[in-house]
Amino acid sequence: MKIGVIGTGAMGSGMAANLIKAGHDVTVWDRTSGKTVKLVAQGATRAETPADAFGGDAVITMLANDEAVRAVIVDGGVLGHARNTIHVISSTISVAFAQELEDIHRKHDVPYVAAPVLGRPDLAESGALNALAAGQEGAVARVTPLLHAFAKQVWPVGPRPHQANAIKLACNFVLAAAIEAMAEASVLAERHGVAPAALIDILTGSLFASPAYKTYGPAVVGRKFEPAGFPLPYGLKDIRQAMAAAENAGAPMPFAAVVHDNLVDAMAHGDGQKDWSAFAAVAWRRAGLH
Amino acid sequence: MKIGVIGTGAMGSGMAANLIKAGHDVTVWDRTSGKTVKLVAQGATRAETPADAFGGDAVITMLANDEAVRAVIVDGGVLGHARNTIHVISSTISVAFAQELEDIHRKHDVPYVAAPVLGRPDLAESGALNALAAGQEGAVARVTPLLHAFAKQVWPVGPRPHQANAIKLACNFVLAAAIEAMAEASVLAERHGVAPAALIDILTGSLFASPAYKTYGPAVVGRKFEPAGFPLPYGLKDIRQAMAAAENAGAPMPFAAVVHDNLVDAMAHGDGQKDWSAFAAVAWRRAGLH
Amino acid sequence: MKIGVIGTGAMGSGMAANLIKAGHDVTVWDRTSGKTVKLVAQGATRAETPADAFGGDAVITMLANDEAVRAVIVDGGVLGHARNTIHVISSTISVAFAQELEDIHRKHDVPYVAAPVLGRPDLAESGALNALAAGQEGAVARVTPLLHAFAKQVWPVGPRPHQANAIKLACNFVLAAAIEAMAEASVLAERHGVAPAALIDILTGSLFASPAYKTYGPAVVGRKFEPAGFPLPYGLKDIRQAMAAAENAGAPMPFAAVVHDNLVDAMAHGDGQKDWSAFAAVAWRRAGLH
Amino acid sequence: MKIGVIGTGAMGSGMAANLIKAGHDVTVWDRTSGKTVKLVAQGATRAETPADAFGGDAVITMLANDEAVRAVIVDGGVLGHARNTIHVISSTISVAFAQELEDIHRKHDVPYVAAPVLGRPDLAESGALNALAAGQEGAVARVTPLLHAFAKQVWPVGPRPHQANAIKLACNFVLAAAIEAMAEASVLAERHGVAPAALIDILTGSLFASPAYKTYGPAVVGRKFEPAGFPLPYGLKDIRQAMAAAENAGAPMPFAAVVHDNLVDAMAHGDGQKDWSAFAAVAWRRAGLH
Repeated sequence: MKIGVIGTGAMGSGMAANLIKAGHDVTVWDRTSGKTVKLVAQGATRAETPADAFGGDAVITMLANDEAVRAVIVDGGVLGHARNTIHVISSTISVAFAQELEDIHRKHDVPYVAAPVLGRPDLAESGALNALAAGQEGAVARVTPLLHAFAKQVWPVGPRPHQANAIKLACNFVLAAAIEAMAEASVLAERHGVAPAALIDILTGSLFASPAYKTYGPAVVGRKFEPAGFPLPYGLKDIRQAMAAAENAGAPMPFAAVVHDNLVDAMAHGDGQKDWSAFAAVAWRRAGLH
Repeated sequence: MKIGVIGTGAMGSGMAANLIKAGHDVTVWDRTSGKTVKLVAQGATRAETPADAFGGDAVITMLANDEAVRAVIVDGGVLGHARNTIHVISSTISVAFAQELEDIHRKHDVPYVAAPVLGRPDLAESGALNALAAGQEGAVARVTPLLHAFAKQVWPVGPRPHQANAIKLACNFVLAAAIEAMAEASVLAERHGVAPAALIDILTGSLFASPAYKTYGPAVVGRKFEPAGFPLPYGLKDIRQAMAAAENAGAPMPFAAVVHDNLVDAMAHGDGQKDWSAFAAVAWRRAGLH
Repeated sequence: MKIGVIGTGAMGSGMAANLIKAGHDVTVWDRTSGKTVKLVAQGATRAETPADAFGGDAVITMLANDEAVRAVIVDGGVLGHARNTIHVISSTISVAFAQELEDIHRKHDVPYVAAPVLGRPDLAESGALNALAAGQEGAVARVTPLLHAFAKQVWPVGPRPHQANAIKLACNFVLAAAIEAMAEASVLAERHGVAPAALIDILTGSLFASPAYKTYGPAVVGRKFEPAGFPLPYGLKDIRQAMAAAENAGAPMPFAAVVHDNLVDAMAHGDGQKDWSAFAAVAWRRAGLH
Repeated sequence: MKIGVIGTGAMGSGMAANLIKAGHDVTVWDRTSGKTVKLVAQGATRAETPADAFGGDAVITMLANDEAVRAVIVDGGVLGHARNTIHVISSTISVAFAQELEDIHRKHDVPYVAAPVLGRPDLAESGALNALAAGQEGAVARVTPLLHAFAKQVWPVGPRPHQANAIKLACNFVLAAAIEAMAEASVLAERHGVAPAALIDILTGSLFASPAYKTYGPAVVGRKFEPAGFPLPYGLKDIRQAMAAAENAGAPMPFAAVVHDNLVDAMAHGDGQKDWSAFAAVAWRRAGLH
């Protein structure tokens, strides 16, 4: 298939590389043209403008946030270049913006599938992401094989695109909650003379033997927050968006509020360049352990 | 070995049965003598008093809480009946009480191992619990084979008994946090038209493929809180004790505070007979979903 | 002086009436022209368009929120009609939008004073509001006598307009916190068989003898939330904006998060038409008292 | 009247001095006999033992906490020395202990009035405290004139002693909430370039013109927490007891939980010798402002 990929940062480039490997004809665009060089060497075509990437069977947009998607897709007016093209947006964007985008795509008669992904750049590269997918059934069905190029599992969540964004935010929230829980429990252990690493061993060796705890547990207790697989300001954005979606939906989320405050605390302590899990350090700091 | 088991409720009877199966000479005592009938049929000897059970190589106490342990062990004065007996307390008791018990055992020159367990009655019966163990190294080493009769894993956590209790409380707290996180995320999903069960499938099919989420996830989203594997007032007690230990140790635990309030909320809504995970219903109630 | 008043709802009409009484030549505009009838009878001139109101010595804008101010002032392009006119915005708007408005006014060379007010419609009518004022010193000095027409006190808070908005949000937050504190304390009293009204008497008769507690205390304990002096969605907006300002400023605000969740809870229970203090009912509901 | 005063620390000595001034025959006892010297010079009789102070018309106990009251009154067995003596306990004790004390007094047939006071040592000295009073109506009526010796107002709250303790805890909680609210709001102000003192001026000059805000506001924004009018560990005890009472009563108190965590945070940062309001510094610390 003829596929456009808009946004070839850490995540998008891994996804594009896997689409090329899967045999698709891939056209790439990025604001920073240097980011497309390696993909072109792998067989991609470089588009001069986002619109040039927007004419094949499907386009996958993987830009950083609401603002970037708005600038390139909405203000940039690329939807007018679609020719039976399905637009897949894999960015983690706000639920409200996804709802607005649904209207905009309908006006341009462009099928819109939201397909945010779970996983970091290394999983994008190895094709082992998890992808959520929401949108009109036919459109989701048509792009599912594409998503499988970089996702080991594709989870359809509903007929309206914003539903996938809500679920993505919910998943990131559950992950943030696991990080906070490990942090608070670790400080409790440390203050009782037990090495937090021993607690993590017990957790991941019993009820919590899953990637979330195995990946983040050692980082939390060792307070190793660099390199930043997912920078802290992005994590703050996701939790803020989860809270905004919850507010609009009438759902109090007290855990999200605690995590939010700790992310703000971490930002105020200069951790904006670190991995988002760096908010775990707040528990140590508040207990007077530096 | 000659083993006493004090307290043969849902957990203690499963543990005692496995000790019998493992070939030990087991003497059992329970305040409610009817609870020992089945074990006697399996080969146990029934003790008339706790003191009668307190004279072999080791005694395992599995009473409900601080009050029960204080009444039977401390006020009952059984420690004077020890004859080179190691005392293993598997009850989930408070850190402060474990510290007090350490002093009391030292005065009676009785080795004391705290060995609280992770898992519900079904795992006690199948011998698949996880046991934490803390106390003097020699004593822990001697009772570890006993613990393996009912625990698939034994985790030594330190030289002082209360450390095992602190870690047990920390583990239960992490579990409670996972339940609350699933509840809040589920309401967010439901309010966006996505079945919470689909969210749990995604979580347990990706980053959260562990017993904690697989066991409690369906209960949370289906709001199935009966039968009570672990009654809610016990969960409230554990979180209260985690907060007390944290206060004494100088560790703020905002997640524990949220869970505590929700457990109190659940009690106030008449859920005291349900499983402790019933506090998950608070998220639905607060969102106006009944 | 020649004064324009844009937005003559519950608050704006009281303010305009006092400006008329003080002898000013007042031109009024409201999207709903019916709202200006009474003021015209009192001596005001009705403007056909916002621009028609924007040419005297000063204009006071008292529209509902960011969106309304953006629509009328920014998108409506009225600033081009200023003739040495000082623009006073008394709406409670977000800090971020106030910063944006500062830029916009600078480009049009229109002096901009932010002058949000503390108090409800009855105080606007009796001229007993408290006004905060921020902006260039000369501009603030020139409009202070105008503000005194409806405010018994005018508090200068700084040279940049958004500072007044930050302080307004801070004040509303402190008020919300007082409401929540009274609600939680009242439930504690009620659950111990003491009438919450007795508790409020003690508080307002001792350490808390101030309007905030005297006004809201009886409403909280009697759960009288109608008529809505300040509707709940506006309160939710203010707390949300306080949290947004705090996030940008690097300030965790855990109390604000609790209030926010309770406001969301109240909305989810259908209290959107009630006074913002209706979130106090959440404490009763969570304690199982209906 | 013949009055005993048990406990003549900072609060009790001021109360005793006022009873002497009011013409009563006062016998005083304190564990530290040096604390009674000044009162003896003012006309009091020093008792050798608590029992010696427990035989007149009324005894006022003003010991530090549950433990001290238990040691002196319950374990010390002084109630047997009562001769138609009414026992007034002014200590801030837990609700559960007050309920236990009610039983103990009933067994000894000693009328028991709980009369905790609001105010610091300076108000005890000037006779300007507020006293809460609960117990059997006749007993409360008889001791009310005594309480007026040191309290400008006496608030009867109910027929059962523990009710006064519940209300005392509720009042301290409302005060703690006011402190936290001022702290969070002040940091928001400071981060927007507005002096927190200016915010406090606005608050206390408008809706919050009451002693709580006027007394604590300047301390909070100036972070002046010494000398300790009421030491931080006592404040932590009060909030812990409020939460315990709330838990037993089925009342979630999320604000209390936030304050509790901040008090623990303050203790962990070495502020145990400061005034309880020192937990306000947590808001600054978390915002990275030291």
